[in-house]
Amino acid sequence: MKLKGAPCMTDKRAAKPQNPLCTDGCIPCSTIGHGGNIYRASQETGIPEEKIIDFSASINPLGVPGSVMTRIKDSLADLCNYPDPYVTKLRSYLSQYHDVDPSSIVCGNGSTELIYVVVRTFRPERVLLAAPTFGEYERACSNHESRVMYYPLEQGDNFDLCASNFISAMAGNKPLGIKAFRQGTNLLPVTHPVSSPCDMAFLCNPNNPTGRLIPKAEMIEIAKAARDLKCHLIVDEAFIDFSPDDSMVNEVRINPYLIVLRSLTKFYALPGLRIGYGIIPLSLIDAITRLKEPWTVNTLAQIAGITALKDNAYKDETFKVIRTEKMILEEGFRVNGIDFCPSCANYYLLKLNCAKAVVARLRGVGILIRDCSNFEGLDDSFIRVAVKSHGDNMRLLKELASPCRA
Amino acid sequence: MKLKGAPCMTDKRAAKPQNPLCTDGCIPCSTIGHGGNIYRASQETGIPEEKIIDFSASINPLGVPGSVMTRIKDSLADLCNYPDPYVTKLRSYLSQYHDVDPSSIVCGNGSTELIYVVVRTFRPERVLLAAPTFGEYERACSNHESRVMYYPLEQGDNFDLCASNFISAMAGNKPLGIKAFRQGTNLLPVTHPVSSPCDMAFLCNPNNPTGRLIPKAEMIEIAKAARDLKCHLIVDEAFIDFSPDDSMVNEVRINPYLIVLRSLTKFYALPGLRIGYGIIPLSLIDAITRLKEPWTVNTLAQIAGITALKDNAYKDETFKVIRTEKMILEEGFRVNGIDFCPSCANYYLLKLNCAKAVVARLRGVGILIRDCSNFEGLDDSFIRVAVKSHGDNMRLLKELASPCRA
Repeated sequence: MKLKGAPCMTDKRAAKPQNPLCTDGCIPCSTIGHGGNIYRASQETGIPEEKIIDFSASINPLGVPGSVMTRIKDSLADLCNYPDPYVTKLRSYLSQYHDVDPSSIVCGNGSTELIYVVVRTFRPERVLLAAPTFGEYERACSNHESRVMYYPLEQGDNFDLCASNFISAMAGNKPLGIKAFRQGTNLLPVTHPVSSPCDMAFLCNPNNPTGRLIPKAEMIEIAKAARDLKCHLIVDEAFIDFSPDDSMVNEVRINPYLIVLRSLTKFYALPGLRIGYGIIPLSLIDAITRLKEPWTVNTLAQIAGITALKDNAYKDETFKVIRTEKMILEEGFRVNGIDFCPSCANYYLLKLNCAKAVVARLRGVGILIRDCSNFEGLDDSFIRVAVKSHGDNMRLLKELASPCRA
Repeated sequence: MKLKGAPCMTDKRAAKPQNPLCTDGCIPCSTIGHGGNIYRASQETGIPEEKIIDFSASINPLGVPGSVMTRIKDSLADLCNYPDPYVTKLRSYLSQYHDVDPSSIVCGNGSTELIYVVVRTFRPERVLLAAPTFGEYERACSNHESRVMYYPLEQGDNFDLCASNFISAMAGNKPLGIKAFRQGTNLLPVTHPVSSPCDMAFLCNPNNPTGRLIPKAEMIEIAKAARDLKCHLIVDEAFIDFSPDDSMVNEVRINPYLIVLRSLTKFYALPGLRIGYGIIPLSLIDAITRLKEPWTVNTLAQIAGITALKDNAYKDETFKVIRTEKMILEEGFRVNGIDFCPSCANYYLLKLNCAKAVVARLRGVGILIRDCSNFEGLDDSFIRVAVKSHGDNMRLLKELASPCRA
């Protein structure tokens, strides 16, 4: 079902605060408005953390793999040693898992660390981002006063990306419908056609928050164009586990401008442990590791990563559960007349007239859903919900049955 | 016992590679030459990791507190949630523990993350570092092309710092004996007197690798001078637990140029988990959190931090064991005629004529000690050893009894 409604990239951007205000002195600004903060929700509602049902972070509902829990319990005494700064064993396992050179793998404190390291390394002048997409790309760029251009994904197209248009935008042509760009924290109008090519572009595949996938053939086209333009293309595959054949991991070795980021957080339900990695062209490794901070991947994350990747039973069960629950959720959305974006991942972007009210109402009863109004390119009628356990999903559908009730 | 021998700050600096070469593509350069890499030692020697006795990292020999292990085991299912980005509960506990405003506390992936965040935030032009000291200060500065000046600590003075001379150097006067400064990765000669004041200075207290403490009265003098000079003074108290009365934590609220960094890694034997924090003036919090990356402190680290701080029995036992073992080690050093620097921490800087050979020989039998030749201001006759368990310490003394044997 295609979402219908006003095209994205409207005046919403102008409404975005130009200097986002920290509401708490000790909080990284960027985490305000992300999903997954059960702690603050618990503080605000008085509902215990363990009673909160969190649809706002797209985490595997099977929870932490039992194999990982056992392995961690057996490894706690090892915490008295520094983590292996080389992350040797996990990188070695990943190199077999993906059939790539271990020297081209860099592990991070979640893939988020690697987003920041990549931007810090190349200090791009002009960066192309899709809108909507994951907000940390823009924040990482704003630290370096990069000029961020938005490529608008259209709601009428299910927020699908057109490869040739994106390539044209990378080359410096003004994307259709673009009205503004961001430099640092400032939003500035585009008053004339853009002409310089970008030197960096991010693509989240499948995209967050839409769940839409760029098929591999199109991604290869984009990556080739990026190479020709000498534009570093960062493909964030945090949610690609459900579409493994579309991964670009094995294209890195033949494209010195392609970087692929992966996460073990979402599929293996380990966001609390922080473990992600990048597949990086060998020619860029020295530059990136020179600016990487040491010991960022803790000992338990390194151990858990290998154990999780080996747990085929968990993987099989996940595919089964997510496939079944997605069918149930989609049927429920249809029955209730809720517009949703068909998703290749374990979450859905929904459009509701009364989205803000629904977010607030459900929060009051301990159900967190992601208010998407702070995504560049979305207005306040969008929410994102994760695919969770059957019971949780049925509860969500029930709550959404008459979304706009008081 | 005062160390005798050639003054530090000799031609050694010129011998330091100007562009340190990564020997492995995927390794943060800075971790080469730090202590605590049992993984590489195991790979190179064939000795299993668990058989290696690691004197090269200064970690509490009591190991991970039992209370922390129990609490972690009970919390593993929570890994399916993102870590609290606000680190609310640990910051709240720390605020009571130190009697400081919780809003002035920022937690990090070890205190190392905060070294990098502070430098990234203020991008200092001229930084004063003691030599020798912890190497990550220089590395963090080199990422921003800061000009790093070294204040030489003299071996003849037990590497003690003279507060008035350090203040004079902060003010821009050329420190006695200084021959060079570093900008980025380049070592450049000082050909004329230095005149501009520094805008950042780091002091590690007690200093790593010497164990020497700057008494609080002198540190307050330095901090006042830093404020008058508008120079950010970063005091790294990673090893201050053994001299708690000399901590500057409670001076931060009255000095807007003072930042204190603390670690839970060394005293509580948790380096594998990554947990440190900074006490930061409220006026600087916004600037620092704006550049801090999200979710860097994992869920288990947040839980372990509180549990460890509450474990008074572990703390008492640690003081007892370390006090006893330090006496035994010092007596052993004296009996064996080994020059050592009297230490206020749980490690010793030793001077041996055949230090390199000793490091290699002991590595061959699975005992790691810290070769200090890559510390600015030390030559290759220095090693650092941690205070470990009684059995391990006796083994070390036995191995050092005739250090220069083949």
